Amino acid sequence: MQMTLAEIAQLVSGDLDGDGSIKIHDVAKIEEAQPGEVSFISNPKYAKFMETTGASAVIVSRDFPVTKHPTIRTDNPYLSFLKVLIAFHPEEETVAQGVHPSAVIHATARIGANCRIGACAVIDKNCRIGENVTLHPGVVVARDVQVGNNTVLHANVVLREQVCIGNNVIIHSGTVVGSDGFGFAREGEHYLKIPQVGGVIIEDDVEIGSNCSIDRATLGNTIIRKGAKLDNLIQVAHNVEIGEDTVIAAQTGISGSTKIGRHVIVGGQVGFVGHIEVGSNTTIAAQSGVSKSLPPDAIFFGYPARPIMQAKREEAALRKLPELLKRIAAIEAKLKQTEQ
Amino acid sequence: MQMTLAEIAQLVSGDLDGDGSIKIHDVAKIEEAQPGEVSFISNPKYAKFMETTGASAVIVSRDFPVTKHPTIRTDNPYLSFLKVLIAFHPEEETVAQGVHPSAVIHATARIGANCRIGACAVIDKNCRIGENVTLHPGVVVARDVQVGNNTVLHANVVLREQVCIGNNVIIHSGTVVGSDGFGFAREGEHYLKIPQVGGVIIEDDVEIGSNCSIDRATLGNTIIRKGAKLDNLIQVAHNVEIGEDTVIAAQTGISGSTKIGRHVIVGGQVGFVGHIEVGSNTTIAAQSGVSKSLPPDAIFFGYPARPIMQAKREEAALRKLPELLKRIAAIEAKLKQTEQ
Amino acid sequence: MQMTLAEIAQLVSGDLDGDGSIKIHDVAKIEEAQPGEVSFISNPKYAKFMETTGASAVIVSRDFPVTKHPTIRTDNPYLSFLKVLIAFHPEEETVAQGVHPSAVIHATARIGANCRIGACAVIDKNCRIGENVTLHPGVVVARDVQVGNNTVLHANVVLREQVCIGNNVIIHSGTVVGSDGFGFAREGEHYLKIPQVGGVIIEDDVEIGSNCSIDRATLGNTIIRKGAKLDNLIQVAHNVEIGEDTVIAAQTGISGSTKIGRHVIVGGQVGFVGHIEVGSNTTIAAQSGVSKSLPPDAIFFGYPARPIMQAKREEAALRKLPELLKRIAAIEAKLKQTEQ
Repeated sequence: MQMTLAEIAQLVSGDLDGDGSIKIHDVAKIEEAQPGEVSFISNPKYAKFMETTGASAVIVSRDFPVTKHPTIRTDNPYLSFLKVLIAFHPEEETVAQGVHPSAVIHATARIGANCRIGACAVIDKNCRIGENVTLHPGVVVARDVQVGNNTVLHANVVLREQVCIGNNVIIHSGTVVGSDGFGFAREGEHYLKIPQVGGVIIEDDVEIGSNCSIDRATLGNTIIRKGAKLDNLIQVAHNVEIGEDTVIAAQTGISGSTKIGRHVIVGGQVGFVGHIEVGSNTTIAAQSGVSKSLPPDAIFFGYPARPIMQAKREEAALRKLPELLKRIAAIEAKLKQTEQ
Repeated sequence: MQMTLAEIAQLVSGDLDGDGSIKIHDVAKIEEAQPGEVSFISNPKYAKFMETTGASAVIVSRDFPVTKHPTIRTDNPYLSFLKVLIAFHPEEETVAQGVHPSAVIHATARIGANCRIGACAVIDKNCRIGENVTLHPGVVVARDVQVGNNTVLHANVVLREQVCIGNNVIIHSGTVVGSDGFGFAREGEHYLKIPQVGGVIIEDDVEIGSNCSIDRATLGNTIIRKGAKLDNLIQVAHNVEIGEDTVIAAQTGISGSTKIGRHVIVGGQVGFVGHIEVGSNTTIAAQSGVSKSLPPDAIFFGYPARPIMQAKREEAALRKLPELLKRIAAIEAKLKQTEQ
Repeated sequence: MQMTLAEIAQLVSGDLDGDGSIKIHDVAKIEEAQPGEVSFISNPKYAKFMETTGASAVIVSRDFPVTKHPTIRTDNPYLSFLKVLIAFHPEEETVAQGVHPSAVIHATARIGANCRIGACAVIDKNCRIGENVTLHPGVVVARDVQVGNNTVLHANVVLREQVCIGNNVIIHSGTVVGSDGFGFAREGEHYLKIPQVGGVIIEDDVEIGSNCSIDRATLGNTIIRKGAKLDNLIQVAHNVEIGEDTVIAAQTGISGSTKIGRHVIVGGQVGFVGHIEVGSNTTIAAQSGVSKSLPPDAIFFGYPARPIMQAKREEAALRKLPELLKRIAAIEAKLKQTEQ
């Protein structure tokens, strides 16, 4: 595939400064781009590469300094670059349309139009699969599951019984949705399993990474709301609720019944205790331990999580502690001397 | 399904205060229950919902204050509620009895009576599968594996060769039992793989969550003892031993050859170094890092894990550290002034 | 299988002190070994077992004290022991040669000589699989993947499209290679998915544990270099690069675009932020949080990771902090008294 610089400028509604007839065949990072490729500079610290880049043109912000290099000026160079990237790399369907002969579909399952069901995928009884859905090979969908339109389940995803998935959802390989919540009641020396009879609701436009564990509710539902994005290896316990457009990085774990608001940003390897609430628009830095409810519109950090300025002050003070011990010993010695 | 209040009172050996002929069709949380549902109050902080609940009856403790609302009084309202919950939600078999035609069973494998083997499940040579065992779709059981009676392996579980699983065990989707332990010997610039020729023994009544990794031993066995309960995404390294009725929350990792006693409770995201022992009945709070052996019957917390009272004292002191720096600077200034 | 002590001594180029005709049938740990088994002592703290071991012979270092027990003396008893272990436990192929009839191989895929493709494995179009490769049951290989010679993919591994795997690589069950990197651009209230059009390169002699998530690059490649060893449940984000012969323990997470050097050793549950570099031969202790680039040839520890001596000093000082608070209050009281 090829586009001219003029066509690319038009695609991103940008102002071209250079030869519009130059042929472009791909995009690349500014420090790696070769002739025939277009790149971008969004972060000023990459501006230095403008002099040395091999790119045939660079997408920059409208106030970027004048340069001899061909440029396309736009309001948001990064978003513009993404549009060019998408244009050069249209998503290629990797599963053939229809149902692969080795897939096992129960007679009572209903599959919508234009679905792609891969080899050895399994769909059990009473499932309702929407239109344009892709199930990659090895996906297992248990009984009574609903899946909306345009949803993609990557290889070896497991949806347990009665799970409900919305439209335009992407779930990556190895993720398990609807496993039993971790609930046991102690009865003498042993534990009695608490039946986990609730469900899981995953709303539209959610994306979940690979090898995540999303447990079903004890009663009611575990809910991941519209537009939320989860990275890989994340634990979502029973009855958790994750708000709209919230973003959670890899290896974070959320304990039972905790509710996370809208537009929250959670770093990697964060842990949340159960039965707390996190307000909307709050950010929690990586590796934090959230031990109680947090207000909205704030930034938290540390173990236990506390306001980031406080946490950083305490961290900085901790760095000085060994020296502090010496200073205090010196004061005590001086006072002792004075007394004598 | 329906039961009368009188039947429910009898099921839980409770004293009914209300109309025994009321029809009940399900259970629900006290704050969400509707007419026709029964609920419970175990924690006093939920007592306030007694006035407003829609539940047709509430299971309470024998000393709960007198109320106009229909109640069933029992010794342990929560356990009573669970019994009602189980009665209304009998476990529904989701895999049909027998062997699905797409399953691949080696001619030398022996499968017990009343098993349910799902689509695309694979059982390799010389395996011995007990009675009433369920293998959900996509389960892979390698050669020479033994599985006891009434055990359930959820979709896409992998049991590697020679693994030994007891009776009444539940293993959730995506969990891998018997992968090679992580062992390498440095030989010059490179690493020589240490063969992992031991096994894994999972005793009766164990439950393991989804996407866990339970490694086989280098020599001997990795052992998870009777009644232990593991949550999701847990790492159990080679030669680890986990004691009876020990409970471990999600994303915890246990390094090689560490032994954890009986009735230990481990929070989420805890890490254990290798070659240590944790005494029975000890509790370790979430996100702790256990860097040395711990005694029995104690509570530990923090990084590194230390007795919880000490850890909390130190945490509280750390909160005061920035202010402390100022107080010390003030003392030093005062002393300097005095000297002059 | 049986070997004489003389044959074992020859295998490890060791000096036998004892009856060379003694028959040996297996290896065992020094404290568990029985007659007919050979063991080893590498760590002096196990020397005490020499008196009581049941082993028919013990491999020891050349300077081990003289003992009545039959010994084989070598330069590196542990490596020698491993060679004997490998001799007694030759790796047994668990997948039959050829392609299992239930496997689904696309007509355009090319499979090398002597491969073993297990039940329900799936290989999609245009794949190139080398010689002597083993795919255990349930492995899914998407389109345009390359796999080198002698590589082993354990049950239910997923290789996404265009992933490139070298020779002599081992990938354990449930691991996903080539899932989409976690990249979103905020556009108003919602997130726009950034296409992840790069690849993953896994070089020769790499071993990756079970249930890991190795994401594909946004552009370019995520790279795991020759001889690197990864444990279980590890997160490798888009565009990460891991150097040759680097070893990473379980549940560690590496954020996007971070580069880790050669011969680095990383403990379990470590987190790395994105876009940093870690120098070669550096060691990072378990549960550390690496928040900025680290130099080579050093040891780091803690949260945030800092030089281990500094971190330990600060930790030790923190232990004294509660007592310090009292000492400072005492100083202040004394000064106040002096003033009055």
